[in-house]
Amino acid sequence: MTLEIARTINQIREKVALKRNEGKTVALVPTMGSLHEGHLSLVRQAAEQADIVCVSLFVNPRQFGPDEDFDTYPREEEKDIAKLEKVGAHLLFAPTPEEIYPQGHSTSVDIGALGTILEGEHRPGFFTGVATVVTKLLLQVMPDKAIFGEKDYQQLMVIRKFVRDLNIPVEILSGETVREADGLALSSRNAYLSAEERKVAPFLHHFMQDIAKACSSGETQQARELLNKAPDLLKEAGFDKLDYLELRSSETLSQDHDNEENRRLLAAVWLGKTRLIDNIAIL
Amino acid sequence: MTLEIARTINQIREKVALKRNEGKTVALVPTMGSLHEGHLSLVRQAAEQADIVCVSLFVNPRQFGPDEDFDTYPREEEKDIAKLEKVGAHLLFAPTPEEIYPQGHSTSVDIGALGTILEGEHRPGFFTGVATVVTKLLLQVMPDKAIFGEKDYQQLMVIRKFVRDLNIPVEILSGETVREADGLALSSRNAYLSAEERKVAPFLHHFMQDIAKACSSGETQQARELLNKAPDLLKEAGFDKLDYLELRSSETLSQDHDNEENRRLLAAVWLGKTRLIDNIAIL
Repeated sequence: MTLEIARTINQIREKVALKRNEGKTVALVPTMGSLHEGHLSLVRQAAEQADIVCVSLFVNPRQFGPDEDFDTYPREEEKDIAKLEKVGAHLLFAPTPEEIYPQGHSTSVDIGALGTILEGEHRPGFFTGVATVVTKLLLQVMPDKAIFGEKDYQQLMVIRKFVRDLNIPVEILSGETVREADGLALSSRNAYLSAEERKVAPFLHHFMQDIAKACSSGETQQARELLNKAPDLLKEAGFDKLDYLELRSSETLSQDHDNEENRRLLAAVWLGKTRLIDNIAIL
Repeated sequence: MTLEIARTINQIREKVALKRNEGKTVALVPTMGSLHEGHLSLVRQAAEQADIVCVSLFVNPRQFGPDEDFDTYPREEEKDIAKLEKVGAHLLFAPTPEEIYPQGHSTSVDIGALGTILEGEHRPGFFTGVATVVTKLLLQVMPDKAIFGEKDYQQLMVIRKFVRDLNIPVEILSGETVREADGLALSSRNAYLSAEERKVAPFLHHFMQDIAKACSSGETQQARELLNKAPDLLKEAGFDKLDYLELRSSETLSQDHDNEENRRLLAAVWLGKTRLIDNIAIL
């Protein structure tokens, strides 16, 4: 089966309507392209959950800050199409920026406090950009389900929040972070890393695992020490600035997690000019 | 046919799904209740446009400012139900505030500059409240069409804007303002007027008609004079503060309307403790 490609909202709506009229269910996998095994695992998971898998490919200008990497963000649509055909996706929605944001577009979806902490603190406007474009994609495609990677854990929580708050009729699913053999979480931005930086990168995950292990085995004191020493230890390992490394409630991402069973460790750190994020559950 | 009443999102979705499965189309008429002939004319118009008419009744706390009339806004559900049964509406969606805004609800829809002028300037946050609740109602009911009164003209423009910007799959229709015999635009808030104030109220519409006539017959100078004298003339007629009386572009509501064919005259004025709004097209 070949991958059908839609470039406009009308086209994707027509294609989805045809599938629906055949009684088929549809799952959407929103991406910014430059697809890696993390994305492809979401496509496979989506295929288990619905008859038709639609992948969207849109590098959303509204979720990049003025000093961020919108212009240099990797774009390789032909390679992406080949990967999606191989993995058996059915529909690709790859609109232009003008199709998504025609002249005069001014509406945004604001999710409140959850969008201003952690990533939101370091990337002002990021989650408003994400919430706005994901709302639009969901309402353009109108899938039964949509799936997002846990790699962007706060983004996943933000999406669950506005989907619930706005009553968007879609079920949100998530897929686990896919990692390289050495532990580095897959990310399109890993392509920015020099060979030297690539060797340093996996340390973040190992360090986070050490903290998680200390937490889950009840060695609270040791976990706290590691968290306190994190800026120094990461610097020694070869990283640059640590944006944050924090234990938070898994559900609300609030700091008030002492009495909560479910916690998540989340981090963002710079390695040269590349910003890496990662997160793991405390089991 | 009796009016079916839904109190929860699940209930209204079930009822709408049943109608849809019968191949029927659905039109939504969002209201804050206290229904008058203006609302009922929208219900009749909706019935011409779709098989099933669903009316929502929800006094939305998020579109009232802290000093506004949320607590005293007229609520008369039994009377509203009788009127809707008489006019032949099929579904009533009358949720509680807790159903629409469960604890922790934090997402809002912001429509940008259009929401900060005219009404938005005098009622900060009003259009964010409107955009958020109407987005929710549309996504809860998922009608084919939704209809709004031209009496709230800027609101209609705001709704058209975010529906287009967010790609909500619904067609927005509008119904003309219904007036009393003496010209006063119907409004649930007219119930606030004393007998004395009620006699003064129609002057606003007549004054606006004078300006509109001057404009459409090319007497620009005379129209400008009337606009300039408006605060004094309205005061003399018995009104209190004039919030605004302005000629704007019909589409964008911008002031830069000199080269535009379509203009609209919009006003908001206080009569005692009651705030009245009105608008008319310049033909």
